[in-house]
Amino acid sequence: MEQQKFDKEKDSSEWFTWIIQEAKLADIRYGVKGFLVFQPWSVEPMELMYKYLEADLERRGHKKYWYPTLIPEKNFYLEKEHVEGFSPEVFWVEKGGETKLEERLALRPTSETAFYSMFSLWLRSYKDLPFKTYQRANVFRYETKSTRPFLRSREFYWIETHNAFATEEEAFKNVLEDMETTKRVVFGVFGIPTIVFKRPDWDKFAGAVNTFGADAITPDGKVVQQPSTHMLGQNFSKPFNVKFVDRDEKEKYCYLTCYGPCISRIFASVVLTHGDNKGLRFPFEIAPKQIVIIPIMAEKEPKVLKKAQELKEKIEEAGFRVELDAGDNKRPGEKFYFWEMKGVPLRIEVGPRDLKEKKVMIYRRDTGEKKAVAEKQLLKEIANEGRFLSENLKKIAKAQLDKSIVDAKNIEDVKKIVGRGIARCGFCSVESGGAKCAEIVEKETGGRIRGTRIDVKEKANGKCVICGKPAQEVVYIAKEY
Amino acid sequence: MEQQKFDKEKDSSEWFTWIIQEAKLADIRYGVKGFLVFQPWSVEPMELMYKYLEADLERRGHKKYWYPTLIPEKNFYLEKEHVEGFSPEVFWVEKGGETKLEERLALRPTSETAFYSMFSLWLRSYKDLPFKTYQRANVFRYETKSTRPFLRSREFYWIETHNAFATEEEAFKNVLEDMETTKRVVFGVFGIPTIVFKRPDWDKFAGAVNTFGADAITPDGKVVQQPSTHMLGQNFSKPFNVKFVDRDEKEKYCYLTCYGPCISRIFASVVLTHGDNKGLRFPFEIAPKQIVIIPIMAEKEPKVLKKAQELKEKIEEAGFRVELDAGDNKRPGEKFYFWEMKGVPLRIEVGPRDLKEKKVMIYRRDTGEKKAVAEKQLLKEIANEGRFLSENLKKIAKAQLDKSIVDAKNIEDVKKIVGRGIARCGFCSVESGGAKCAEIVEKETGGRIRGTRIDVKEKANGKCVICGKPAQEVVYIAKEY
Repeated sequence: MEQQKFDKEKDSSEWFTWIIQEAKLADIRYGVKGFLVFQPWSVEPMELMYKYLEADLERRGHKKYWYPTLIPEKNFYLEKEHVEGFSPEVFWVEKGGETKLEERLALRPTSETAFYSMFSLWLRSYKDLPFKTYQRANVFRYETKSTRPFLRSREFYWIETHNAFATEEEAFKNVLEDMETTKRVVFGVFGIPTIVFKRPDWDKFAGAVNTFGADAITPDGKVVQQPSTHMLGQNFSKPFNVKFVDRDEKEKYCYLTCYGPCISRIFASVVLTHGDNKGLRFPFEIAPKQIVIIPIMAEKEPKVLKKAQELKEKIEEAGFRVELDAGDNKRPGEKFYFWEMKGVPLRIEVGPRDLKEKKVMIYRRDTGEKKAVAEKQLLKEIANEGRFLSENLKKIAKAQLDKSIVDAKNIEDVKKIVGRGIARCGFCSVESGGAKCAEIVEKETGGRIRGTRIDVKEKANGKCVICGKPAQEVVYIAKEY
Repeated sequence: MEQQKFDKEKDSSEWFTWIIQEAKLADIRYGVKGFLVFQPWSVEPMELMYKYLEADLERRGHKKYWYPTLIPEKNFYLEKEHVEGFSPEVFWVEKGGETKLEERLALRPTSETAFYSMFSLWLRSYKDLPFKTYQRANVFRYETKSTRPFLRSREFYWIETHNAFATEEEAFKNVLEDMETTKRVVFGVFGIPTIVFKRPDWDKFAGAVNTFGADAITPDGKVVQQPSTHMLGQNFSKPFNVKFVDRDEKEKYCYLTCYGPCISRIFASVVLTHGDNKGLRFPFEIAPKQIVIIPIMAEKEPKVLKKAQELKEKIEEAGFRVELDAGDNKRPGEKFYFWEMKGVPLRIEVGPRDLKEKKVMIYRRDTGEKKAVAEKQLLKEIANEGRFLSENLKKIAKAQLDKSIVDAKNIEDVKKIVGRGIARCGFCSVESGGAKCAEIVEKETGGRIRGTRIDVKEKANGKCVICGKPAQEVVYIAKEY
């Protein structure tokens, strides 16, 4: 068996490449740059992640749609900033068979221009509002930067919500609720802690009034963008003619918002955040297999295998996802190593002595602790240990994020921090006026201004780390993974 | 409220167009020919249909993958018959931004050429076999025939399985198991009875050795193709180099099979098969809402609404999908009409008198029968009536299919039957030799040879209805919807 060669904290990029192949998460040999084949060991957890996110959105009143993958060019050109932002990244379909199409069709890079063209047909009155929709979709961007599996691909998997409201207040309330969903699901279930930033003006979603992006941290101190939510105001409702007749019988433009959790990128953070030098560590809720049963000395005692099968059925019936590794061509030690690398939260070992004592051993992937459990207590113990494991992974991840934030007094500090953590410092302005200082930051430190916090009020002291003018804002600077 | 204008049996095509709009199943005004926006009332049942089909495939050992939507042109051209069959229908991507791509990329019309290029990298030994995979995907075909919502679109939603076996026997066994899945899920759960035909040689999937297609019937006697399963033999494994080393240490080509349940088209059959003049009738298992609660005289007795809410929570907790229509701007009769049109299986009415007697009324959408049920028995009664309803819809559908098959002695008979049912008759040959007679059939009757049955052995008597040579086969002829 091949020994793992990379230290996850020090060589996290190499470790990430290694684990994608070793755990069969995805195969990069498809032959088209930026496109990859996702294998069952990533598809199953990503399906579970979809399930949790969709359930949360449904509870909040979003209804599910399936929109076409192709968007007519004319829709695409209606919102000026949007088209400027996205056109360099659009894949175009121009032919069906060898027939030239009447109009070019865009492979959706995002679906505002598809959704809002229909909103204008459907919405008539204040009684139709709020109107909250979503779809699960794959989207396409012709990335010219270097692509990385899960993190930056030319096709990726996400959810996009699109929503219409009568007032700006209601729209903004929904933006805040999106952030709650991020916290509840991305942190609460997937165990990825994030900081939500209001992005600077120069880093907004193309066409948005404001963008709020959640950032997670990698083991080596870079950030990975998690879901972002956008206040679109009336920027799209005007060109797309999304209007309603209000209670006062006046016709008004709707306020629109959208929210885009990118499942394949969040999955990258699940891998990067929770993994260790042995391999993956899945939170219990989204593990493709939650438990692996390994029979010990089954070749000497046939009852062991029978018991293992019996346990498997019992555990499965209780609704857990369980695997029995009964193959006799590998020693238990090899099996342990393999399933630890695969990130299965709990391992159950059952051997001849356990049979007699009516107990089994449970091993926790996160702590490495092993304990004997009475067979009668097994289901309860599985549920408990699963929960403890998820809580423990969350705690570790949260501590890592917290410690990565370091105050910087000047640009030299920022340089030292960026690439290894998140620098927190004073800055002149996150409106367009600060764009020049932001460019200098990027050039000198390789980091980008992530924005200002909205969950805590932070008062700026001192000066902008670049221009030396009085600091208006406290910003966070980090390198993107 | 607008009265329904079409008779489902007589004007089933107009009825279908009407119900798609009336029940908000999909909106055809997206603005690109052959593409439509699926709305929640079709998305929710189609998601449930995916769930049932995927669970069946998982039980049979298929593992889920996500493949890229785009297929490189060179893959596409490896299997000669395949490319001939599909290239007129392929949408091509040639540009990213305004940059010409190095190679044209096909929007997948089906994914054999994507899957098998990876199989050749993954499969090494007989120990890797059988190898059974699937994906849930949207696929694209530049249809030049007229498009119809759900039935024939340029983008549609399906599952495709792709599988490799060591021997022809094992491959064929899997093809037979696919037919069992069709029976178990498409009939058993969705209530769509089908006949499985071995398609004639001239009507096989491009690149297949044999194609087995299941046909369902529409109310006006046309057929709609349901899942088909294909024996690909070594036709793809040779050009794609899908090989394995067998027990005898010899290198051999795999036998491949694929199976393609098209969810959006099966959904069309759910609508067409079960609907009636009032609108949709969903089987209980796939109904977006299974129960609607309608409070009666709630404006006179406030306790009614409270009770209705209490019932809703109780029913929801039991795991059913339930809607409470508590709006007071509509009379109960209007609500009845609306939810019957929407196809909700069970309606629960609760009024002031029911409160006193601790009972509610249950109305069955399929039979129109209404009965009083003690509140204590409600959950049990819902489960029972739901099951009875699904069984009843299945029985009705099966009787309709059975009665649509009519024996034909000559071409005049066939002409009379086709368009109103399925003609069963003697035919010279379903090998290439019969292709000419099949052309005449199509020209003279508008019907196509659906193939020969494989579930029952049928012995041909008499002569081919076209050429008069001794009949070798019993074939079925019908018009496609």
